[in-house]
Amino acid sequence: MPPHPLDQELPKHVDAALADYLADRRTLGARMESNFTDVVDGLADFVLGGGKRIRPTFAWWGWRAAGGDPGGDLAGPVLTAVSSLELIQACALIHDDLMDASETRRGMPTVHIRFGKKHRDEGWLGEAERFGLAAAVLIGDVALAWADDMLFAAGLPKDALQRLSLPWRDMRTEMLAGQYLDVLTQARGDSSPDAALRIDRLKTAAYTVERPLHMGAAIGDAPPELVAGLRAFGTDIGVAFQLRDDLLGVFGDPAVTGKPAGDDLREGKRTLLVALGVEYGADVLHDALGRPDLDVDTVDEIRARLVEVGAVDAVERRIAELTQSALTALARAPIAEPAGERLAELAISATKRTY
Amino acid sequence: MPPHPLDQELPKHVDAALADYLADRRTLGARMESNFTDVVDGLADFVLGGGKRIRPTFAWWGWRAAGGDPGGDLAGPVLTAVSSLELIQACALIHDDLMDASETRRGMPTVHIRFGKKHRDEGWLGEAERFGLAAAVLIGDVALAWADDMLFAAGLPKDALQRLSLPWRDMRTEMLAGQYLDVLTQARGDSSPDAALRIDRLKTAAYTVERPLHMGAAIGDAPPELVAGLRAFGTDIGVAFQLRDDLLGVFGDPAVTGKPAGDDLREGKRTLLVALGVEYGADVLHDALGRPDLDVDTVDEIRARLVEVGAVDAVERRIAELTQSALTALARAPIAEPAGERLAELAISATKRTY
Repeated sequence: MPPHPLDQELPKHVDAALADYLADRRTLGARMESNFTDVVDGLADFVLGGGKRIRPTFAWWGWRAAGGDPGGDLAGPVLTAVSSLELIQACALIHDDLMDASETRRGMPTVHIRFGKKHRDEGWLGEAERFGLAAAVLIGDVALAWADDMLFAAGLPKDALQRLSLPWRDMRTEMLAGQYLDVLTQARGDSSPDAALRIDRLKTAAYTVERPLHMGAAIGDAPPELVAGLRAFGTDIGVAFQLRDDLLGVFGDPAVTGKPAGDDLREGKRTLLVALGVEYGADVLHDALGRPDLDVDTVDEIRARLVEVGAVDAVERRIAELTQSALTALARAPIAEPAGERLAELAISATKRTY
Repeated sequence: MPPHPLDQELPKHVDAALADYLADRRTLGARMESNFTDVVDGLADFVLGGGKRIRPTFAWWGWRAAGGDPGGDLAGPVLTAVSSLELIQACALIHDDLMDASETRRGMPTVHIRFGKKHRDEGWLGEAERFGLAAAVLIGDVALAWADDMLFAAGLPKDALQRLSLPWRDMRTEMLAGQYLDVLTQARGDSSPDAALRIDRLKTAAYTVERPLHMGAAIGDAPPELVAGLRAFGTDIGVAFQLRDDLLGVFGDPAVTGKPAGDDLREGKRTLLVALGVEYGADVLHDALGRPDLDVDTVDEIRARLVEVGAVDAVERRIAELTQSALTALARAPIAEPAGERLAELAISATKRTY
């Protein structure tokens, strides 16, 4: 049987669902207050401007794992429901960029920078930065509120909405708890491996993989052993994803990652890799971390030290172990195919060495 | 028949519902990540630290107007559902204080100031202001997400949840659209009466009165003519509330309002009163508005001019007309008593002259 188009080209369909939803809300919003379209357009530019649609993909395959039929009547509502995860992610990123004072994302100005520029271009009163801040706060809030609206209006049966209310609730709180822990860890200068792993578990494992799978499984009324299997897979593979991402942030090819080499070091990210580097004695990290002017030679020196002290090997080993345990949990779970195969592929492709 | 305790002492019961909900979420949150209790405690201090519970009160009476029985099985779930409105309001105020860089609210430090101070007291790394900003963004986000969670888990019948999904959706968007219009109007220096009224309609009329009434009526499965009557009442009385508040912000007794006399002028609020003052030629406003160092003599001069040019009379007339049309709409609607009486009392007490 040939793969169903929804399985095959899910990100494209997620994009379309988001574009439709935002267009409808723009029409409703313009009726409410004509200037509100600034906010809707700011959100739509951000949401439709890129992103790999990872969370909807896991949620979709969680539903397929529970026997959801991509050719059935429920496929449309499920597509809309899983697409709403991108609005939560828009809130997370827009607010995160504001909190970090980041100026670009995906090569484009961030939302607070863009609205600050609008303020300056229009010659408005007051501080441009303050206007940019306000717009970013409000656009993120709109995204968070509309994620709920989109989920609730997706057309899912009421009992499915009821079942997914707990994973939905916990996912959002885990995301926000992860963001707070991240900010707090930076403020405390806590460079312990434990702090790095706790952030990874909340922000990447739970919010990005485990809960989307859990949501999809809940929509599909999965039996408890399937839910447990998918969640175990999601937790381990989610942390493994993040650890691979951390390695790419230091060792990745800029042509592939889209970020300058060593950018994670310049941003001062407290990853497990860095935490282990510090623990194992890569003292060069102490002065270098978080310095925006870090030069290429120092980045090279840090890379060499991270390898020498064994931090890279330790992280690689951890990735391998987590990928193995994730695949074992997946293999044991009573999954409807082709979801098991597809999830195994996603797990392997996202955790394999690419530098 | 003596009044039911829920009708009689609603704010106290709303406080208790919020305290219970936040205590439960604190327990769940601590299990997720121990440091997350900082966020929950920051939110709980804010939510339980004051507030008149206006929105839950209107929502409650909207439900009572549709025949809801305060002694029936549904009263507990309805109380929880209407209390969730205070979490949306917490998001609105915490984010508003951040956007306005306000340092105090209800005589206490605002959330971003409080967390900035914590950062300084602990001697943490990085900028204290940035930490305060991040905490306020995240605590507001938690409040917005938990408002939904609290509503969804209130125990309402599924068909009631379905009916209130549209007013709930529109209420949140109206609040955010109103906030954006407020920020934009300030930036543009738009001091027109039209802009002031559009903000009042979104932020106070729709978000504070009309939609809470609509929500309550939807929970109670009110017939369309009752919903329409309550919404017409809410729109007019909501604008009248705001206009009275605007007058109190300039003419109110500090002992009653809890704010220094003329504080709205120092903050540069673009109210209908100020807009009409400018339109009618109270030129003293041009230089004075938004000046934090505005002295008492100038405040007195502005008051005198606002009276002389007729701005105060015009606003008073508008309040009287709106109150009258609101009460007419209320009298015509098929309301279950004592809700009609109680809503009329609320309307009159909140719009009458108190200076």
